[in-house]
Amino acid sequence: MNKKLYGNAVVGQSGGPTAAINATLSGVIAGALKAEEIDTVYGMRNGIEGFMDERFIELNEIFSNDEALDLLAQTPAAALGSCRRKLPNPESKEEKDIAFYEKLFSVIEKYNIRYFFYIGGNDSMDTVAKMTRYASAIGYDIRIIGVPKTIDNDLVMTDHTPGFGSAAKYIATTVQEIIRDCAVYTVKAVTIVEIMGRDAGWLTASAAIGRVVNGIAPDYVYLPERDFDDERFFADIEKAFEKHPNVVIAVSEGLQYADGRYVGEGTQSGSTDVFGHKYLAGTGKALELAVKARFGCKVRSVELNLPQRCAAHLLSETDISESIRIGAGAVKAATEGVSGEMMIFTRKDGAEYYCDVEHKSVLEIANATKCVFDEFINDECNNVTDECCKYLLPLIEGEWDTKYEKGLPKHIIL
Amino acid sequence: MNKKLYGNAVVGQSGGPTAAINATLSGVIAGALKAEEIDTVYGMRNGIEGFMDERFIELNEIFSNDEALDLLAQTPAAALGSCRRKLPNPESKEEKDIAFYEKLFSVIEKYNIRYFFYIGGNDSMDTVAKMTRYASAIGYDIRIIGVPKTIDNDLVMTDHTPGFGSAAKYIATTVQEIIRDCAVYTVKAVTIVEIMGRDAGWLTASAAIGRVVNGIAPDYVYLPERDFDDERFFADIEKAFEKHPNVVIAVSEGLQYADGRYVGEGTQSGSTDVFGHKYLAGTGKALELAVKARFGCKVRSVELNLPQRCAAHLLSETDISESIRIGAGAVKAATEGVSGEMMIFTRKDGAEYYCDVEHKSVLEIANATKCVFDEFINDECNNVTDECCKYLLPLIEGEWDTKYEKGLPKHIIL
Repeated sequence: MNKKLYGNAVVGQSGGPTAAINATLSGVIAGALKAEEIDTVYGMRNGIEGFMDERFIELNEIFSNDEALDLLAQTPAAALGSCRRKLPNPESKEEKDIAFYEKLFSVIEKYNIRYFFYIGGNDSMDTVAKMTRYASAIGYDIRIIGVPKTIDNDLVMTDHTPGFGSAAKYIATTVQEIIRDCAVYTVKAVTIVEIMGRDAGWLTASAAIGRVVNGIAPDYVYLPERDFDDERFFADIEKAFEKHPNVVIAVSEGLQYADGRYVGEGTQSGSTDVFGHKYLAGTGKALELAVKARFGCKVRSVELNLPQRCAAHLLSETDISESIRIGAGAVKAATEGVSGEMMIFTRKDGAEYYCDVEHKSVLEIANATKCVFDEFINDECNNVTDECCKYLLPLIEGEWDTKYEKGLPKHIIL
Repeated sequence: MNKKLYGNAVVGQSGGPTAAINATLSGVIAGALKAEEIDTVYGMRNGIEGFMDERFIELNEIFSNDEALDLLAQTPAAALGSCRRKLPNPESKEEKDIAFYEKLFSVIEKYNIRYFFYIGGNDSMDTVAKMTRYASAIGYDIRIIGVPKTIDNDLVMTDHTPGFGSAAKYIATTVQEIIRDCAVYTVKAVTIVEIMGRDAGWLTASAAIGRVVNGIAPDYVYLPERDFDDERFFADIEKAFEKHPNVVIAVSEGLQYADGRYVGEGTQSGSTDVFGHKYLAGTGKALELAVKARFGCKVRSVELNLPQRCAAHLLSETDISESIRIGAGAVKAATEGVSGEMMIFTRKDGAEYYCDVEHKSVLEIANATKCVFDEFINDECNNVTDECCKYLLPLIEGEWDTKYEKGLPKHIIL
């Protein structure tokens, strides 16, 4: 495993974009450009889809200076493009599946790819796992590494995921601003902020971080980890009205009733994505209408929507520097002989927050979901604990020094 | 008019909050603290409503240091609270209206108020106009000044309004980030960004500013100043698909068909606010459903919602420094004898952008709406002109140096 492997590298991005996935890309590129084992560094456009079509972009020249790498790190979304393609089972005996892998590995051979870096979420780690199995089966010497990203923070094994910290910072900041905005009037009003997160409530939990910073946080935080109940919800609101007229509530888009129905089900399309995930929208809207009907007061819902994952004008310094570090760490691990693994963060004990960059078998990681821990959710199921806020806080700390041009943040387009 | 008038001052905020209304407040406070004619500086809580109830807060002590003023300038929403109260006609012979003004001016006398600063939008200038008429009728010596704020930029006479620049910067930045986010996939998709602005399209127009900065802007921008037409809209989208698969469109919440129906009417509550303005929501959602039905492709709508007016983490340096300056200018004008006027910005000719702070009779201003100029809208009624972008650009330039504490922007709470 420790012999030196010489050849070219390719890097791709897959799954939903984040504000930090390009920071990880810049880390991979910087690491690969420095690695003596790696010659040409290719970027595949639109993930594995572009790879199959040999839509490559040579990155060595473009990123020969640090300025381009810095600009890439502050550019939101996936600069190489992304895809949502589920790979067939590598052990499949179906002709089209066999043909798929033969084509995939013929491209790998044609470009003398010996290093394959895939930056993505849960579904992308599934791709890494399958390619690793196939490579092993045919005995092709290649190092395949998954580098995680997801704003959802729902990957197991890693302390947190790159991209989550910046999304959490945006959410915590925006919710505090909304609380200020809602506080200006004296009439009773309920404001419901809908936050992303299908199965895991980490992003919604982030709305509460302010509590351990300046004491300002939503009245309630409802996570998808707990069954939602309309009557308990109404009782919570009534209690909050006893304290102040402006009630602010954070809810996860993935809230479900005990019988499995989604809270937003009435106002959603019901369609599913290619991985079979139900497409959700409208949890906030559904609750807005319910509260309006029950209390007759002013009610508003705010869906934070796409800016949660692409608001690169408000990046967590911790998140971006870690995202760069984990990208570079992937290259280092690969050149040292690691393959079929996903890069992870391990939080060190001690007063000062610090995470080591390590790696774990991707087989242990793919297709599992890390939900918000039980001890992070209060007994009333309507908020997170201070312990949760303290776990989350260091991930949003520090402000990335974003470069602007004529009033707008600068982005790089590949 | 030029005799010195000694006494106390009161300042209030009214109407919808913005990210800059507290910057103007800090300017008024700083100016009033320095003015030898002014002794105590009161803040009225919740605008004229709090004034009637004598809910005052003494500001001299709290803002005796620059740090508190700086913190106020970066705090979103109305730190003193706001209200939406329409004053009765001061010439009314109705008993309750007479009683209202008698009470109002008894409070003014009780606190020896000689300077009354009211920071607000169109509706608030109506308040200033009415109070001025009443003061004049009873011969009470007081200087009443309106200081504009509105993210909508729809006040006449002034080049632009404080608060608009920061909202425009947030919109232009966020739309560019959404464009990056949408560009990652290769499948046909339409993303519709709904932007605030009931009657005037200035905020929606701001989505296009990037065009004169880095060439990146939405495919189309639809303003409420032009009748909306579904078929023309569909034809526009078809044309955009010829160029690229990811179509991004900015629409104003106030879009109307030629027959006067609001585009979002189907999905809205139809209720009106106390000034009789129709409450709108759902223009983006309505168009999302229409495009989905027509094209069958992936469609998404993003309502920028409250963050447009409260995202103080992304302030335009131009806007905030001007907002402070116009607040201080109001105090200067008042001590020099001006009353019944609204402070305005006058843009100077020349290569370098600069606005003078001046004042105009509030009677010419109240209840009029400044719409986007004809020459700022293209002939196809589906975008703004470069000239429009060039007018808007300086208003978003510069980044305010926001202070953070443990990862979150610092706010002051009064």
